[in-house]
Amino acid sequence: MSADWSEGDLDLAATLRDRATEGTRAYEHVSSLVTEVGPRFAGSAGDTAAVRWALNTLGTLGFSQVRTQDVLVPRWVRGTAEVSILAPFPQPLVAVALGGSVGTAEEGIEASVVRVESLDALKALSADAVKGRIVFIDQRMERTRDASGYGATVAIRSQGPSIAADLGAVALVIRSVGTSPDRIAHTGGLTYRADAPRIPAFAVSNPDADLLARQVNAGKPVRLHLHSTARELPPAWSANVIGEIPGGERADEVVLLGAHLDSWDVGPGAVDDGAGVAIVMEAARLIGRLGRKPARTIRVVLFANEEFGLSGAREYARQIGEEMNRHVVAFEADLGQGPVWRLDSRVAPEALPAISQMLKVLQPLNLESGMNTASGGADLRPLREAGVPVLDLSLDATNYFDIHHTANDTLAKIDARTLDQSVAAFAVTAWLAATKQGDFGRLQSKTE
Amino acid sequence: MSADWSEGDLDLAATLRDRATEGTRAYEHVSSLVTEVGPRFAGSAGDTAAVRWALNTLGTLGFSQVRTQDVLVPRWVRGTAEVSILAPFPQPLVAVALGGSVGTAEEGIEASVVRVESLDALKALSADAVKGRIVFIDQRMERTRDASGYGATVAIRSQGPSIAADLGAVALVIRSVGTSPDRIAHTGGLTYRADAPRIPAFAVSNPDADLLARQVNAGKPVRLHLHSTARELPPAWSANVIGEIPGGERADEVVLLGAHLDSWDVGPGAVDDGAGVAIVMEAARLIGRLGRKPARTIRVVLFANEEFGLSGAREYARQIGEEMNRHVVAFEADLGQGPVWRLDSRVAPEALPAISQMLKVLQPLNLESGMNTASGGADLRPLREAGVPVLDLSLDATNYFDIHHTANDTLAKIDARTLDQSVAAFAVTAWLAATKQGDFGRLQSKTE
Repeated sequence: MSADWSEGDLDLAATLRDRATEGTRAYEHVSSLVTEVGPRFAGSAGDTAAVRWALNTLGTLGFSQVRTQDVLVPRWVRGTAEVSILAPFPQPLVAVALGGSVGTAEEGIEASVVRVESLDALKALSADAVKGRIVFIDQRMERTRDASGYGATVAIRSQGPSIAADLGAVALVIRSVGTSPDRIAHTGGLTYRADAPRIPAFAVSNPDADLLARQVNAGKPVRLHLHSTARELPPAWSANVIGEIPGGERADEVVLLGAHLDSWDVGPGAVDDGAGVAIVMEAARLIGRLGRKPARTIRVVLFANEEFGLSGAREYARQIGEEMNRHVVAFEADLGQGPVWRLDSRVAPEALPAISQMLKVLQPLNLESGMNTASGGADLRPLREAGVPVLDLSLDATNYFDIHHTANDTLAKIDARTLDQSVAAFAVTAWLAATKQGDFGRLQSKTE
Repeated sequence: MSADWSEGDLDLAATLRDRATEGTRAYEHVSSLVTEVGPRFAGSAGDTAAVRWALNTLGTLGFSQVRTQDVLVPRWVRGTAEVSILAPFPQPLVAVALGGSVGTAEEGIEASVVRVESLDALKALSADAVKGRIVFIDQRMERTRDASGYGATVAIRSQGPSIAADLGAVALVIRSVGTSPDRIAHTGGLTYRADAPRIPAFAVSNPDADLLARQVNAGKPVRLHLHSTARELPPAWSANVIGEIPGGERADEVVLLGAHLDSWDVGPGAVDDGAGVAIVMEAARLIGRLGRKPARTIRVVLFANEEFGLSGAREYARQIGEEMNRHVVAFEADLGQGPVWRLDSRVAPEALPAISQMLKVLQPLNLESGMNTASGGADLRPLREAGVPVLDLSLDATNYFDIHHTANDTLAKIDARTLDQSVAAFAVTAWLAATKQGDFGRLQSKTE
C-alpha cells in the first residue's frame, strides 16, 4: 500500500510500462524528424522547419494546447573549416570549427604547434612558449555510462579558446570531446570570455589528433595551416513548442517533460536530441491514451536552442511567470536513446519515500536507485534554480559520445527497442508524478 | 617427409611462423607510412612522398637491389563534391565523386531522381523514365568474409555511369559500395565506356542513401542538386618500388610478393593498402634475417597506381620481359590486415601436393584449404595471364569494406596482432615457395 498513490494509479503505471515495453511509435517519430527536417541548428531554415514539424506532429498525435513560445536565438554559421599539417609531413586533417568560433582571414593562419594534454598543462606554460603559436590540447575523453567522461573533458572546448588566447595563442585546435574512433570530428559550443581575444578554435577527429600527436612526438617542429569562414549573423527567431495531456482534479499543476528540438548543424540530430523529443512525446501520448486523465497536466516542452546558449530554457522560465510555482516536478531526455538505467531525484526529503515507490514500479525495466542530487539537465536549470524539483532518468551514455555533435548522428544509430524501454520509464515516471497525492516539495536555493 | 622440401627448410618455415606470431614490426611500418606520408593517390605529391618513403624504408630494413621502375599514371583530382536534396525535404548529403568522374558546370545539376535497386532494374527502364533525370542506384553491399559481397555490387560503381548515360540520365548517384554504417562515403573507380556520354557520378554514405530512399519512398517527387569540380589533369610520373631478399642456388628465379603503394586520395590508406605493404615487407625482412638464404630470390614489389587503373602492374609485366619465365610463383596482400584464413592456389596439378604440404605448416595459424582457382589479385593479373602460378592467402574481409576507399582508413583501424598473423602466413608461404625443390609449373592460358 502507498500513501501517495491509489492502487488503481499504480496498476495503470504498470500497464503503461508493459505496453511501452511491447512496442511504441518512438522510432517512427525520430524517423519522421530526421527525414522531413534533418539538421535544425538554432535560427536556420531547418530550425524553422523543425518548429513546423513539432506543431504538426503534436497536433496529429492528439496533444492539447499545442502552441509556440517565440524565442530570439543567436545566429552563427560555420562555413568551411580547413586544418592541414604543413610540416614536417604535410597532410590534411578532418576538422570542424567549434560552435561560436570566429573565422580566419582569407589567407588563413599558419603557425607552429604547441601540444598540451590538459587545460592545467596549458595554464602552466609561459606566454613565451605560447605566443604566436597554435595550441593543440590533446586530452582524450573517457567512455563512461554516466557521461562523467564528458564532464571531465568538456572544459577544453568551452574554456580552452580564451585560456589559450590569454597566453597569446593565435588559434586553438583540440582533440574532439567525444569518443568516436572514426574520422568524424565533434563540434560543440565554446564560451569566449569578454576580457580575452577571440581566436579561431577547431576540433579534429580522434584519429587526426592521433596523427598530429605522432608528428609532434617525432620531435621536429610541426606547422599547421588553418582556415575558416565561420561568422556571426544577426539574431533570429525560433520557438519552444509545447503540447499537453490535460490533467483532471489538479489541472493547473504541471509535470514537465522536456527535450530540445534544435540540433547542431553538422548532422540530422537523430540521437541528440531527436531521441529525446521522441521519448517525451511518446511517453505523454501513451498516457493520453490510457482512458483516464492524470490529476495534473503533463506538459511536453520542446526547447529551442539548447545547443548554442539555452535560449529556449531561459525564455520558458521567463514566460511562465507565476505558473513556476505550480510546476510540481520536471525532467528531460537529452542524453541519447537509452536505455534508462538509473533514477536520481532532487526533491524535498519528505518526498523521498514516493521516489522509492516509483522505483519499485520501474524495477522491471532494470533501473538502479540513485541519489537525491539530480541536476535535471541543461534546459531545466532555470526551473531548478527557481525551486522546481527535478528528476534524472539517466540514459545510458556509453556509446552516446561516439556520435554526439557529429555528422554521424543519423537514424542508423537508433534502436527501436531501446527507445521503447526509455519511453516506458518516462511514461511511468510522468504518470506517477501526475497522479501523486501530495507534491515533491520545493527546492530551497540555487546552491542546493 | 616431403619430396619438395628438406627437413631443415620445413623447420625454418615453422621457426618463421612462430617468430612472427610472437610479434613483428609490421604495425610500425604502417604507422610510419600513414604518419609520414598519408594519402598517396597516383600522381599526387603524396604519391611522390610514398615512393621516397618506400625506397628509404626498404633500404633501412636491409633489402637488396632496392630500386624503382618509372610508371606513367593518369591524373585526376576530385575537387569538391556537393549532393543536396532540394525537395520534398531539403537536406545536404555526405557524398564523394567516384574516381575518374567528370565534374559539373559551375551552376551544378538540378533534376528529379529515379531510384532503382540494381543495374538490371536500371537496364529495364525505358529511356523516357530516365531521360533528363538523376539515377539513384540503391543497392546495398553485403558483408562477407571472402569479399564476394563487393564483387556482387561493384558493377554499380564501375559500369553504372555509362549504363545510366545510355538511357539519357544527366548524372548518377549510388549508395556507397561499402559496408560502413557511418556517415562516410566510399569512393572507387568508374569506367566510362567510349560510346556513352560521360556524366558526373557520386556515391553517398549508407545513412544518406537510407535518407534519400525514405524521401523517395514517401511518394513525392525528389529533386537533387549536384556540384563537383572533379577534373582530369595531364598524366604524371610515379614508380613501382622494388626490393629483394637474395636467393642462393637459384637466385635467378623469383618468388614475387606484391602490394600496392598508392591509396585513394580521401584517406591515409592504412588498411588499403598500407597493411599489405607492411605485411609483404615484414614477411620478406624476417626471411632475410633467418641466417640462411632461400634458394630463390624473394622480390617485394610495391606497385604504383593500383586504384586508378593498374598502371604499375602493367608496367612491371612489360619491363621484366623474358624474366617473366623465371617468376616461379606470385602472391599479394591487398584485402586489408587479415587474419589470413585460407590458402587458394592456381598452380600446375603436379604441384598440388606441395600446396597441401604448405598448408600443413600454416595450420597452426588456422588456415583452411581452398581451391586451385586463385585469382592472385589485381596487380598480379598480367603475370597470371602470362602463365605465372599464383596463390591467394585470403585476408579476412569481414570488416574491410567498412573503411575501404574512405577517409576513415586510418591507423586506428589497424590491430598489430592481426597483422602479425598475416605476416606469419606470408613469410611461411614465401619461404616455402623460395625453397621448394621443383617449381609450380606454368599456367596454360588467359582463360584458365
